[in-house]
Amino acid sequence: MAEEKLTTQAENFSDWYNELVIRAELADYSPVRGCMVVRPYGWRVWENIQAALDKRFKETGHVNAAFPLLIPKSFLEKEKEHVEGFSPELAIVTVGGGEELEEPLVVRPTSETIIGYMYSKWVKSWRDLPILINQWGSVVRWEMRTKLFLRTTEFYWQEGHTAHATEEEAREETFRMLDVYADFAINEAAIPVIKGIKSETEKFAGAVMSTTIEAMMGDTKALQSGTSHFLGQNFAKAFEIQYSDKNNELQFAWTTSWGLSTRMVGAIIMTHGDDKGLVLPPRLAPIQVVMVPIFKNESEKRQVMPVADDLFAALRAAGVRVKMDDREEVTPGFKYNDWELRGVPLRMEIGPKDIEKNSVALARRDVPGREGKIFVPQTGIVPTVQNLLVEIQAALLAKATAFRDSHIFSPNNFEELTQVLQNGWALSHWCESSACEAKVKEATKAATRCIPIDQPASTGACIVCGQPSKRKVIFGKAY
Amino acid sequence: MAEEKLTTQAENFSDWYNELVIRAELADYSPVRGCMVVRPYGWRVWENIQAALDKRFKETGHVNAAFPLLIPKSFLEKEKEHVEGFSPELAIVTVGGGEELEEPLVVRPTSETIIGYMYSKWVKSWRDLPILINQWGSVVRWEMRTKLFLRTTEFYWQEGHTAHATEEEAREETFRMLDVYADFAINEAAIPVIKGIKSETEKFAGAVMSTTIEAMMGDTKALQSGTSHFLGQNFAKAFEIQYSDKNNELQFAWTTSWGLSTRMVGAIIMTHGDDKGLVLPPRLAPIQVVMVPIFKNESEKRQVMPVADDLFAALRAAGVRVKMDDREEVTPGFKYNDWELRGVPLRMEIGPKDIEKNSVALARRDVPGREGKIFVPQTGIVPTVQNLLVEIQAALLAKATAFRDSHIFSPNNFEELTQVLQNGWALSHWCESSACEAKVKEATKAATRCIPIDQPASTGACIVCGQPSKRKVIFGKAY
Repeated sequence: MAEEKLTTQAENFSDWYNELVIRAELADYSPVRGCMVVRPYGWRVWENIQAALDKRFKETGHVNAAFPLLIPKSFLEKEKEHVEGFSPELAIVTVGGGEELEEPLVVRPTSETIIGYMYSKWVKSWRDLPILINQWGSVVRWEMRTKLFLRTTEFYWQEGHTAHATEEEAREETFRMLDVYADFAINEAAIPVIKGIKSETEKFAGAVMSTTIEAMMGDTKALQSGTSHFLGQNFAKAFEIQYSDKNNELQFAWTTSWGLSTRMVGAIIMTHGDDKGLVLPPRLAPIQVVMVPIFKNESEKRQVMPVADDLFAALRAAGVRVKMDDREEVTPGFKYNDWELRGVPLRMEIGPKDIEKNSVALARRDVPGREGKIFVPQTGIVPTVQNLLVEIQAALLAKATAFRDSHIFSPNNFEELTQVLQNGWALSHWCESSACEAKVKEATKAATRCIPIDQPASTGACIVCGQPSKRKVIFGKAY
Repeated sequence: MAEEKLTTQAENFSDWYNELVIRAELADYSPVRGCMVVRPYGWRVWENIQAALDKRFKETGHVNAAFPLLIPKSFLEKEKEHVEGFSPELAIVTVGGGEELEEPLVVRPTSETIIGYMYSKWVKSWRDLPILINQWGSVVRWEMRTKLFLRTTEFYWQEGHTAHATEEEAREETFRMLDVYADFAINEAAIPVIKGIKSETEKFAGAVMSTTIEAMMGDTKALQSGTSHFLGQNFAKAFEIQYSDKNNELQFAWTTSWGLSTRMVGAIIMTHGDDKGLVLPPRLAPIQVVMVPIFKNESEKRQVMPVADDLFAALRAAGVRVKMDDREEVTPGFKYNDWELRGVPLRMEIGPKDIEKNSVALARRDVPGREGKIFVPQTGIVPTVQNLLVEIQAALLAKATAFRDSHIFSPNNFEELTQVLQNGWALSHWCESSACEAKVKEATKAATRCIPIDQPASTGACIVCGQPSKRKVIFGKAY
């Protein structure tokens, strides 16, 4: 394993990604067309993402539940735009228990419909609102061109579905969850996402408004990393989610939905990774510190291992996710490469000289070579390591932010726009017409990513047609 | 809600169960035939079960991963007994992305096949073994007669799948995980399960040996609550999971699988519940303590609430799962019934008199009426509550154990056997022939549940045919 070098990012970013996902054992291709297997190392990253998000969901008053995987086909047809958007992607169960089904069932591509149906059963009065439910699971959308983590027929995600008494509350919820996603991405995944609103062409099938967090990958392409939708009364009307208000009048509820998926694992790989492999942010890394004890013979081993074991125990007791790599059939050099490939943030080396000096060597994954290597006393190893992990987390965010900011351009005209989009994003005024959006796509393959929420007030002229514009949009090629 | 009384257990145990699941908002019927919706309160119980099991899985060296939901139909056909067992229960996807599929895909009823396929890719050498992977998810088995949590077309579970170099290791793993299940059931769910081996007719389709934990419900029926299977080399041969041993010779691996599902929620309901509703074991209860502040007017409210809030904060800070029921539109009596229905282990009442006396009233859910109500000082409330929760947990286990033991009989002959099986289990010698098993079933509807692992050595005569027997089996009617 890991003897050949990876394709470099400069040679071919896509090949680099595909090779890395397999060789770091994050995921594997499956015998089922378009579906992936998430291997234990990759799944542990996802479990850490789940824990960080779930905590935020619960702190904002949400609870988890589980709704059926299979949905009557007729349910999807109740919301016109929804069925148009999802019909081409459906996997359909036509046989159950040995018999042809009277009504086919679709494997859920998303759950607005079945959850809408249940909410209509549960909601009677204004007292039953809001309902704030999230579901962890997987969904199936038939995909022709797949890529591990980024686009697969089955993928893992969470989907939140909420129902509210008023439009205002539902809009607030939409932005609250967008903020939760951004907070998670920035502070846990060290990805400096931009919050924004999707254009009419890019919004979710059935939504009134879609919001998104957009991340810039190492090849400057954009990755939509989480979305939060204001659904208005579309699904409430399709599924009759109605309540008696305080005046005893029947009203339709207002709903939202929001989701973040295993795509986020792909985002982490492509934001922080380098030619040596993964670089995982400490807060989400399955292993935060790998220890490599170094000895040439049994006598040195007897010197080194007891100290190494003590340091290991101290770190573990402090809640640091630490692994001891005590394999004897491979060299320390092999181990260094192996754990660099897997993106472990911090490596601790300890050999006979360290024992003499009461020291250990710590090597940062994010700072290659000598520069990233320091010698520290064994005494106080726990705070030393903890502080370094915090420092690494911050450094990854700072680096990704600098990269992003140096690849967002402000072109002056359409020609400059097409040029900058070869290697970055453009932040430009836009008249918000689909026609101008389509022209950019035709010329550059780049789409509107989002209208950033946090932007200074400005007016200008659409970079395509010159018509007046009140706010800027981000254009970029996307995954 | 919860104004009408529940059907009593004595009137109709099955109706009691169905009403309780709905009224306590654990689960609901869905519009999809045979599928359930697990509501937030029920899902929280399952999340607590998951956390308690996952911790044990990780402590015994297992890791989680995710394999595809959809499995090529031909995979199931590779293991003869497996396909015979599962064929009648399959949900089959025949259309994907708008087109008829060349090969139909089944929605996984269990994942031995697809995981076996992946293991054959991953395993090359003895160094790659053992593989110890678990997966959390849902599976689909078409069911004609369904009952919430106990038997539904889709259900939630974990399935562990391991591969080993030797038969001995695989057998050890089978029993290790059975022990994990029993430890969980006894110490977390307060259910005194009996560990045992399934008969040939009752074993898993494709297994060499199946083991089980069997629980006795409040109506004396048995519930198979978790199973651990030794699969021999059946799946290794079907999927060519082969490794080079230390002598460089090619060997087939030995595999196991083990699963525990949302059935366990049903087991908890039917083991501990009573005519007032659920009785949840403190270790798994979503809410361990509900606080009911009592006041008649604003002045009393101003007296009571600050103290109640302080006690609430102290309990929460100590990690107790506590809820304040400060609804003002319903009476304290209504709240008592409501939380009794939902099985909260401990209720804390606090009113103006308690403020004067620096006391609170604590009422135990498992001890009805006056006997279960004590007045304790507010000072030291945290240890008082924590100790009581431990006491309640132990009391539930003791009560369930006494109930179980008083309903396991040792009949002297076939006629007595048929009699005791009307209202309990029988522990009897049995020749281990399917013919005798079938005779019992025909006469009583009871099946063999398991051959208990922990039983004193004894010899005797089969209770059906009189042939020699070396060990006893449990007969019982089952869910």
